Amino acid sequence: MAADPYQLTATDVLHKIKAGELTVEAYARSLLARISDRDEAVQAWAYLDPDYVMIQAKALDEIPLSERGPLHGVAIAVKDVIYTKDMPTQFNSPIYADDAPRVDAGSVAILRKSGALILGKTTTTEFAATTVGPKTRNPHDPNRTPGGSSSGSGAAVGDLQVPIGLGTQTGGSTIRPGSYNGIYAFKPTWNSITREGQKIYSLILDTLGLYARSIADLDLLADVFALADDETPSKFRIEGARFAVLKTMVWPQIGSGGAAAMEKAVSLLRAHGAQVEEIELPEHLNDLPTWHAAVLNSDGRTAFLPEYTTTKHDLSDYLVGHVENNTKISRKAQLNAFDSIAAARPVVDDIFGNVPDEAPLGIEKTGSAAFCLIWTALHTPVVNIPGFKGDNGMPIGVSLVAPRYHDRHLLAVSRAVGEIFEAEGGWKLDV
Amino acid sequence: MAADPYQLTATDVLHKIKAGELTVEAYARSLLARISDRDEAVQAWAYLDPDYVMIQAKALDEIPLSERGPLHGVAIAVKDVIYTKDMPTQFNSPIYADDAPRVDAGSVAILRKSGALILGKTTTTEFAATTVGPKTRNPHDPNRTPGGSSSGSGAAVGDLQVPIGLGTQTGGSTIRPGSYNGIYAFKPTWNSITREGQKIYSLILDTLGLYARSIADLDLLADVFALADDETPSKFRIEGARFAVLKTMVWPQIGSGGAAAMEKAVSLLRAHGAQVEEIELPEHLNDLPTWHAAVLNSDGRTAFLPEYTTTKHDLSDYLVGHVENNTKISRKAQLNAFDSIAAARPVVDDIFGNVPDEAPLGIEKTGSAAFCLIWTALHTPVVNIPGFKGDNGMPIGVSLVAPRYHDRHLLAVSRAVGEIFEAEGGWKLDV
Repeated sequence: MAADPYQLTATDVLHKIKAGELTVEAYARSLLARISDRDEAVQAWAYLDPDYVMIQAKALDEIPLSERGPLHGVAIAVKDVIYTKDMPTQFNSPIYADDAPRVDAGSVAILRKSGALILGKTTTTEFAATTVGPKTRNPHDPNRTPGGSSSGSGAAVGDLQVPIGLGTQTGGSTIRPGSYNGIYAFKPTWNSITREGQKIYSLILDTLGLYARSIADLDLLADVFALADDETPSKFRIEGARFAVLKTMVWPQIGSGGAAAMEKAVSLLRAHGAQVEEIELPEHLNDLPTWHAAVLNSDGRTAFLPEYTTTKHDLSDYLVGHVENNTKISRKAQLNAFDSIAAARPVVDDIFGNVPDEAPLGIEKTGSAAFCLIWTALHTPVVNIPGFKGDNGMPIGVSLVAPRYHDRHLLAVSRAVGEIFEAEGGWKLDV
Repeated sequence: MAADPYQLTATDVLHKIKAGELTVEAYARSLLARISDRDEAVQAWAYLDPDYVMIQAKALDEIPLSERGPLHGVAIAVKDVIYTKDMPTQFNSPIYADDAPRVDAGSVAILRKSGALILGKTTTTEFAATTVGPKTRNPHDPNRTPGGSSSGSGAAVGDLQVPIGLGTQTGGSTIRPGSYNGIYAFKPTWNSITREGQKIYSLILDTLGLYARSIADLDLLADVFALADDETPSKFRIEGARFAVLKTMVWPQIGSGGAAAMEKAVSLLRAHGAQVEEIELPEHLNDLPTWHAAVLNSDGRTAFLPEYTTTKHDLSDYLVGHVENNTKISRKAQLNAFDSIAAARPVVDDIFGNVPDEAPLGIEKTGSAAFCLIWTALHTPVVNIPGFKGDNGMPIGVSLVAPRYHDRHLLAVSRAVGEIFEAEGGWKLDV
């Protein structure tokens, strides 16, 4: 039986539209039907106007073939901390109810011009800065969190409601929901994609993140966002390749499912002819999580002063605490953390790491960022590769990390690794 | 004869309004009359609606005394790369003509809530990222540039059209117009004031800047923006204080007026009992300007991809060059520059420096950023102190620099130094 259009990856949708086998209108209708079926269970959307989606879809169909962009018709979900000029941006906060910015974020402007169908806005924790989850449920178990803060984008892509989602990451907000929802998640090198129009938490940490159900789809996006390494990678072969397992200082926090996934990942890579060796970070970098917290709290002191000044009563206690510096971080400690992370970046740039965990039970908390935040601080690109199963049958992803501005290399590696993990890891997205 | 209200500093306006000697309405009327007189000569404004200003002024007068903010009635000019929800934001570019963001920048939200009268938007070079000047003239000589990229805010404050202006600085865009227009300019520590809603050129370099005609006014703003050092400075005494003169690697580019201003600044400080000694940066930091350029060009590659993608024909060749990486900066060179600057920050943190120059003739180019950009890269706070006169009778400022997050200390020092330079430096703003 032919797949329903909503089940397709972006790459497949592009092929079918180009071949005249699918209209954007029919595609949009299929996605909206899927959403209509599943929204009560998953609740991934902060804003979605089906009528407006259909108007946009029909307008895309009107564009002559010669004028169509590289993402013509591909549906994209946008985390609700990223500006869209035609849809409200609310940050899961009541503060901007009357101020919805009528401008596209830089990322959205690029996607729209490339022909993407901006489907709607997806849920987030408050300002992508707290761990209290929004209403969204994990599509693979409604009693579990989809992870956060990019909860809605992660769940919507994991539930086949949309093939591509935009997230953001300041700690682990893109990679973690990728792991929990069983999809590919890509945090590119810091500042390699513009953050214009993306709410600020920490300038030096915030990164735009991308969700998809295939590496081919992430490559499409990498092209549109002009991600370029110094050297264009060729096809990557697992056989004879070398991988490093880097458990990092937070390994003692790993769950049994996460540890098992890591073990299986290593044995699969070895079974396919790769060399895998365990390495460690230099001991003086054990403070990376502490430094990350110091920078985050201090940057939050600056970032949320506007909301604190205008409407403190509508700001969560956690963010009020940032502004009031309730963790009593001195400027000296802040600068030490900032400078120490900066010094660590070139040191760590050569290291690959793998970071797993399983979605913890419950949807109140959006999970731990422990296994992601050091890579955010270090600005390295990270890809979450799905394919493993936790103790409770939930998906677990394993992350691959590359040096900064080796984004295309990392995608090339991830494509080869992903084929193996998806085929033999033990968990598969039900498409 | 009593001063016209437009001649007052923000501090004086606050006192008069609090004492019931001045209404915001009468104050706004005085400013608008001044602007009406002078606008043809100076052309500082990108957007100003006198009727709307009067509506806002009257609304401020209606606020009960007990509910007034710390800047109640103080007029503020906003550089047109910073979002205002009630006025268009156009970046001196046609690209956003239809997309004026209906949201306040974080800085504007704080100022508005504090009772400021947001007067209008001031001119800028294109996206605050080129050196081709806007229409604005130097108020002290219409044949000369007011400096850039914060051309309009610098000129408007220097011409008594408004007491406070917001600028931005990525190279020297705040400090340079401060020097050229004979006013105080303050570039606080990077990220100590939110840049939310301020167009991005380089995340790691862009800094909000402040203009005023007194240090007391800058202190008012520092309070509202919650700038806080680890130690609150007490009153600073020049006598017995130690200053360092740091000519830096760009000193050979100094003009004769700039060199004379520096010499006079040193002798004035010595005459008032300060110790002044010349110091040098470590030789390995001579590449700071090169590193700054590498980061700037590479960050421009990311920052302007949206405009390049949507409307390349409306983007200047210079910014198209950034996106196309026409200076051929490799990722390796980019990261080396980024990391080298990061490593230099803690090294330089203890050093004060003084950096002068005079407004070059003509308004086509907005002048050189050479004497400012290293401090932008190093994230240190800088204050331009007016008071000196160049070869052609134009104002020249001398900059004071302090370690990061010694912003309040720097303001305390600047207050004492400014009193001397203004009184004895040889150039005085005609109020």
